[in-house]
Amino acid sequence: MLSITSKDNKLIKNIIKLISKAKYRKEQGLFVVEGLRLCTDAIRSGASVEAFICTEEALQKHADSVAELENYADYSYIVPSSIFSAISDTKTPQGVICVVKALDNKPQFDKINNKYVLLQNMQDPSNLGAVLRSADALGFSGVILTKDCCDIYSPKVCRASMGAIFRVPFIICDDECGFVKDFNNGGISYAAVVRNGISITDFDYNENSLVCIGNEGNGLTDDLVKACTYAVTIPMRGNAESLNAAAAAGIIMWEMVR
Amino acid sequence: MLSITSKDNKLIKNIIKLISKAKYRKEQGLFVVEGLRLCTDAIRSGASVEAFICTEEALQKHADSVAELENYADYSYIVPSSIFSAISDTKTPQGVICVVKALDNKPQFDKINNKYVLLQNMQDPSNLGAVLRSADALGFSGVILTKDCCDIYSPKVCRASMGAIFRVPFIICDDECGFVKDFNNGGISYAAVVRNGISITDFDYNENSLVCIGNEGNGLTDDLVKACTYAVTIPMRGNAESLNAAAAAGIIMWEMVR
Repeated sequence: MLSITSKDNKLIKNIIKLISKAKYRKEQGLFVVEGLRLCTDAIRSGASVEAFICTEEALQKHADSVAELENYADYSYIVPSSIFSAISDTKTPQGVICVVKALDNKPQFDKINNKYVLLQNMQDPSNLGAVLRSADALGFSGVILTKDCCDIYSPKVCRASMGAIFRVPFIICDDECGFVKDFNNGGISYAAVVRNGISITDFDYNENSLVCIGNEGNGLTDDLVKACTYAVTIPMRGNAESLNAAAAAGIIMWEMVR
Repeated sequence: MLSITSKDNKLIKNIIKLISKAKYRKEQGLFVVEGLRLCTDAIRSGASVEAFICTEEALQKHADSVAELENYADYSYIVPSSIFSAISDTKTPQGVICVVKALDNKPQFDKINNKYVLLQNMQDPSNLGAVLRSADALGFSGVILTKDCCDIYSPKVCRASMGAIFRVPFIICDDECGFVKDFNNGGISYAAVVRNGISITDFDYNENSLVCIGNEGNGLTDDLVKACTYAVTIPMRGNAESLNAAAAAGIIMWEMVR
């Protein structure tokens, strides 16, 4: 393991930029995940790990996992806790970080009876992470993100996804209406709308199915609702205007596979 | 309207403490909600509004709503934007804040076929807010919070609940196992567990029903699982270890009423 002893080290500075700037992540084609669980999820998924950084304490406390990560990563570095805290995004760091190449785990669209979810302009990292986690848990075949969603590679999304980011195939899509129209050739698309849609319980979802979930404040654009085969609504009994976007996504996704 | 011209004003200092300290909220029996929507939800629900504070700009821009709030509140104050920003919890404040008495909207437990959700040690304010919103949207009759949950009156929970805090009956419970045992006399209780429970689709939930959702990291305590009539699991098809707590709550709550 190489040793880093200064905060002015180029890699340390690079990691700080990767953690804080979505644009820089995109330019570099890299992102950062922290903690044993996410780092281990990264290598188990076959992601390309450019650098692994850990503290002396982590090396002693988690010898086996650290050895596995060290073996897998292109380069490994050991840093003092004082430097690690500068690149850590958490209050009580485990002392383990990986710099990972942007993922290339695209969904396949060639099978029958697959389930997909499209997120249009989802802004909250916790919501996006939760939807990735639901897609993983419910066996969805892919997540389609519009390009105005919050950055899937942000530390908050990675953490909220509990590693689902490494398991669920996803793509970022420039033209969601075009995508849905294509999808309709071999499947049925459902636009989730707050009111006046057909009840989500009125379908059996036995075909290749895609559900579209909109922005937290504004829902789906009219164009995207029109592009979908059906507009669907979760029947609500109370006085709420709507559900949280990730909760609504979870309920509809569950209904599609139950 | 009374005018406040100094940041050293007692009410302003009090609001800052109410926003930042859960213990102080509890001592005072007061909490703070910000924004036209939450303030209007407060008065429509019949909550007791001790003070209404707004900026000159809000008074001009939202004259009708401000008049309604001014009429309803015990005392109303106008403050300059410079002072308002000190008590605002948002980036682009609407210039409207209410100080509200702790709510007394307890669930009724005397009817048949009602649905309730109990949250044990839920820590994330966004999750708690989302569950309140789901309970509201799905027509649940009450939310039971254990006393180690994050504070329901925190600004983050109020905001994430989108006003559901004012509509959904809730109680904070000292002894959740005792509560569940009592509930079992006239209903069926379901403990949500990540694995090895009975599938949530195996029940018709036609009786008075309570579902218990656990802490984000640790789930339910063994004692509480044992106290429940059944342990239930959302069938998962992927590799995820679990769903986000609010997503899981949403899915099970939906299954109970669909």
